[in-house]
Amino acid sequence: MKSQDHHYAVIFASTLLPQSDEGAAYEKMAHAMAKLAATMPGYLGHVSARDAQGFGITVSYWKSEEAILNWKHHVDHTVARDQGRERWYADYKVEITRIERAYQWKRDEE
Amino acid sequence: MKSQDHHYAVIFASTLLPQSDEGAAYEKMAHAMAKLAATMPGYLGHVSARDAQGFGITVSYWKSEEAILNWKHHVDHTVARDQGRERWYADYKVEITRIERAYQWKRDEE
Repeated sequence: MKSQDHHYAVIFASTLLPQSDEGAAYEKMAHAMAKLAATMPGYLGHVSARDAQGFGITVSYWKSEEAILNWKHHVDHTVARDQGRERWYADYKVEITRIERAYQWKRDEE
Repeated sequence: MKSQDHHYAVIFASTLLPQSDEGAAYEKMAHAMAKLAATMPGYLGHVSARDAQGFGITVSYWKSEEAILNWKHHVDHTVARDQGRERWYADYKVEITRIERAYQWKRDEE
């Protein structure tokens, strides 16, 4: 995927509650949502990192704001969000952004 | 900081080389850069998460594209970037984005 195909990036930053027995259930939901998102029209990919303290950032890439709204309102996503608020999240923040420019660097394999 | 103050977000996603003896040196550099960025005009904050596999995402927030360019070209930042390429990064990607809208959720403290 070339960077110029990235029209919009959605930044999702979240803190999980310190309930380690819920970790597997959360991971299962997150994995299911990532799989589902990948089937949505206009989905371009995502990256995700969560640290040992339970703070994580996921960035998903979309072709249009319409695609982002479709994903936001998908019924399974809505159910997962409600469950997340009840069981897993201490807080989260969502930012819908438009990518103005991008560049990347990769180590040469010698 | 209110979300409407976030005009631009810079997404920095990087993978560290698997050199655990370099971890402390990398952390020291990253900490110094975060401190320096906070002194730059137009800086609004940042969040960061890195997982156990060495993949990390940092999002920094800026008032303007000019502020982002000033930071990009700061001499100490340039030195750190060169050092990062030599010693720590397997790859990285930078995306300069404009925040279109944002919302957040926080658990009620009862």
